[in-house]
Formats: sequence, C-alpha cells, structure tokens
Amino acid sequence: MADLSTSDRPGTRERILDTTAELFRRYGYTGTGLKQIVALANAPFGSIYHFFPGGKEQLGAEVIHRSGRMYEELLTAIVDAAPDLESGLRDCFLGAAAVLVETDYADACPIETVALEVASANETLRLATAEVFASWIRAAVARFTGSGVPAEHAEDLALSVVALLEGAFVLARAAKDVQPLRAAGEAAVALLERARA
Amino acid sequence: MADLSTSDRPGTRERILDTTAELFRRYGYTGTGLKQIVALANAPFGSIYHFFPGGKEQLGAEVIHRSGRMYEELLTAIVDAAPDLESGLRDCFLGAAAVLVETDYADACPIETVALEVASANETLRLATAEVFASWIRAAVARFTGSGVPAEHAEDLALSVVALLEGAFVLARAAKDVQPLRAAGEAAVALLERARA
Repeated sequence: MADLSTSDRPGTRERILDTTAELFRRYGYTGTGLKQIVALANAPFGSIYHFFPGGKEQLGAEVIHRSGRMYEELLTAIVDAAPDLESGLRDCFLGAAAVLVETDYADACPIETVALEVASANETLRLATAEVFASWIRAAVARFTGSGVPAEHAEDLALSVVALLEGAFVLARAAKDVQPLRAAGEAAVALLERARA
Repeated sequence: MADLSTSDRPGTRERILDTTAELFRRYGYTGTGLKQIVALANAPFGSIYHFFPGGKEQLGAEVIHRSGRMYEELLTAIVDAAPDLESGLRDCFLGAAAVLVETDYADACPIETVALEVASANETLRLATAEVFASWIRAAVARFTGSGVPAEHAEDLALSVVALLEGAFVLARAAKDVQPLRAAGEAAVALLERARA
C-alpha cells in the first residue's frame, strides 16, 4: 500500500501539475496559491519545493509548457477526426464552447489568463507563454499550407484564427454565453476559405 | 494651496481611478494591491475606503465601467476620424499596436486581464466586464448595420471583430510583437467586406 501514498513520486508530481493547470485556467497565476495547490492535489506542502526547487515560478513555467502541449494535442486530434479542415476548425470552436458550458464557463484556454497576468510582470513566464503560442501558430501554419493556403498568407491566417479563439474565450467567459465562440468559429472558417481561394 | 493637496476630492478620487485602471491593464485585478494604488496615486491609504466604501471590489467595478467607457470613446473617435469604416477598423488595430510598442507591450485592452481573472472568481466584477463588452458589441453592431451590414449578420461580425482584437492583444503581449494585431486587423476588415457583400 505504500506505493499508493501521496508521496509516491510520479503520482504526487502529476497531481501537482494537474491541479495547478486547472487553477491557472480558472483563476490565473496570481490568483493561485501554493497552499491551495497542495490542498487540492492532496500533497504535502514540501513536495512543491521537492519537485520544483524554483517554487511557484518553476512550477508555473512547467505547467504553461505542459498545458500548452496538451491543448495543442487536443486541438490536433479534433482536426484529425474531422472530414476536412473547415469542419475541423469549426469543431475546435464548438468543442471549446461545449467544455465551457460543462464547466460553468470556467475551463477555456489553459494559458490565456496567465499570459496576460505575466506579460508585464514576469519575463520567464512571459517567454513560456510566448513559446506555447508560437508552437500553436506553427502547427496551424503547417495545417493551413498543407491544405492549400499559400505560404505567404498562412501565418497571418494562423494568427487570426488563434486570436479569434482566445478573444472569443474572453467574451464567452465574461458573458457566460457561447455565441462568441460560435461566431468566431464561423469567422475562422470564412477566413480559411478566403485564404484558399 | 490647500486646494492642491492630495486630499482634494475630485483630484484624489480621479488619481485613484486612473492609477487603478493602469495597474489593472498591466497586472490585472489580483496583481494590483491597494497599497500599490495609493502609493502610485499619491493618496492617503484611507482615501480608498473614503471614496470606495466597498473597498477593492467597488473600486474594481467602477474602474472596469469607467475604463470600458473611455476605451469605447477612443475606438469610436478613431473610427469617426477615418474616411470609411474599413479604414477606421484597421486604424483601431494599428493604433492599438502603436500603443503597445510605446508602452513596451504593457497597455492593451483595459479590462481583458481582469475579465479573465474574475470570470470564475467574482460574480460582481464578472458582470461589470460583461456589461462593458456588451456595450462595445452594441456600438459595433450599430456601426456595422449603419454601413450596410445586414442586421442578421451584424452581431456575429461584432463578436468576431472584438474577439480578434482581444485575442490579438494576448498574442502580441506574450510575443512582444505587433504582427498579431496587424493580421487580426486585416482579418477584421475582410470579415466586414464579406458581411457587406
């Protein structure tokens, strides 16, 4: 039974990362406390500094990168499951809307709140968020060029589509209404069709 | 000289509001402390509770509404100064990019960071941000329908354009790069042209 204790390494570290990711998504970086993390992760307080000697900043950077990778994988899987890129793009926005409704408008982009909080306050974490967004943009550019969007338009299209998603999250969470995500999804599809034409 | 003291009513109250607005824009709600506000506003600590008996939440709600009105007036003035709505729309995004560069990517949307922080944490402030965004959407809908966009498309267009601006702010601040705002501005113009056609 000792293997199931809260101090078994992979388990505790993973729980801290998962819990921190959820708290960041809902309340942001500043609004997430280490005591809150260990309480919700059912981990001893010292385990944070054991696994993340750099404390909240190191934990934050790791959560930003990890959440960014997981969200990219999720969106990629949604696009892969669709019959074409337009449908896949629309499904990303509608899937995001469904998650918002299921979570009472709590779970949107995993790094957006943190990105805005740290942009002018913590250079290490700003760079972490910039790297995640850059990875998403690269992935979108690859999809768009692969589907016939001319290379010279692919990056601006990717920036606009990710901006539509991130901006729609802000409006949807504030209003507790999914229409911003529906509208932004249709706008993203229209921009893709235009870039291909 | 007594009229110029830091406790003269309009002056101190205005300075507290201005300072709080700037701190919210840069660091968000949670990252802004009352001590920091009074220090930067050159105001006695008690003045916050004198002018805002409800404390940080009341001050926050007032700053959200006031910043929202001021930003709406700014964007309206930019659109009014342009020869046509397409140019006006583009100028809003390029003007926002110029302010970002001037402020080392600190000053973007006045309520975006706060909106995300409070969405799942403070219902009073969430409603304040929702009212501001709704007012912007209404103003954009009026402009769009006035310029020939069919009524049934105007709201989705307004949601998409505001989402493009808000999302581009996130990407631009994270990357310290204005290209997301340029790309989003051109996307907004393209969506407007499409909705009018």
